[in-house]
Amino acid sequence: MEKQWDIIEVLRHSRHDWMNKLQLIKGNIDLNRIDRVKAVIDEIIIEAQNETKLSNLPMPGFVSLLLKTNWENPSFELEYEVFVEKGTVKIDDEILTNWTKQFFLCLHNAIEAFQENHLSITIESQLNGLRFFFDFSGIIRNKELIETFLAEERIPLDLTVKEFSQNELALEVFMPAV
Amino acid sequence: MEKQWDIIEVLRHSRHDWMNKLQLIKGNIDLNRIDRVKAVIDEIIIEAQNETKLSNLPMPGFVSLLLKTNWENPSFELEYEVFVEKGTVKIDDEILTNWTKQFFLCLHNAIEAFQENHLSITIESQLNGLRFFFDFSGIIRNKELIETFLAEERIPLDLTVKEFSQNELALEVFMPAV
Repeated sequence: MEKQWDIIEVLRHSRHDWMNKLQLIKGNIDLNRIDRVKAVIDEIIIEAQNETKLSNLPMPGFVSLLLKTNWENPSFELEYEVFVEKGTVKIDDEILTNWTKQFFLCLHNAIEAFQENHLSITIESQLNGLRFFFDFSGIIRNKELIETFLAEERIPLDLTVKEFSQNELALEVFMPAV
Repeated sequence: MEKQWDIIEVLRHSRHDWMNKLQLIKGNIDLNRIDRVKAVIDEIIIEAQNETKLSNLPMPGFVSLLLKTNWENPSFELEYEVFVEKGTVKIDDEILTNWTKQFFLCLHNAIEAFQENHLSITIESQLNGLRFFFDFSGIIRNKELIETFLAEERIPLDLTVKEFSQNELALEVFMPAV
């Protein structure tokens, strides 16, 4: 899934995403559902604020990965929520980014494509570090692949498996401040 | 004005631009000016289609320059219109991009900042090449700077000065197919 993104490509994807949002507004206006339009706009604003919070985190590798993942057509849809204030602690961006890339690839290969597959990532401030909660829901068709990955790739991360079934995988990763 | 743009920075600027557009929609919805909302949305769609047309041109250097110029805070606001079909002729991107960068810098230094300064670029298909029409309107406070630039930088471009006064500068550049 590695690819170089230039400004033209990034804006092409971003424009496409925004045009979809605009289409949603336009469709509801044409139906004169003004209350729905207001709700849609409020959702878009919250989403954008969340993206801003993500972009402010001092871990450019991880942030870039999250921003572009949905454009690289993995078999899951990525969402994220950020509960971290500005001026947060620094963590090892490279270790986290490399592990996350491998995890996305493993997930991509282990799940059933063309299904309702969602991966939600929650990022929270903790005492002396950051907590990353990876919560997948969808259809896992190759559990062994994920088991092998988790056994091999656990090091050097502080990783806890919270839930692991055919339809869910929940992982908690703690990254200490550096 | 040279700067490296990564995906986080590009999206930060793009998000800011789109949030301004959304604000315009939201403001008019709050005032219940639904016809105005529809007109605003139509304008945004045309603008996005124009950006798509620009992005499809086979000259990545020039396209990237135009896409990011307004983010680099020049003393003028850049607009562009593209009348070129897909699969157009190839021109020398490097020569055009270098000249345009120098032209933007010259203009930036020659005009009165904080005024209504607009630069509009029109790109049109021509027989055996592309025509670029650069039309500046605003306040030029240092005509000599532009005169010197045009005398020095005219080569290697096929450039014609169409208009040059205290308030307007119109240049036509023809780039032959390569």
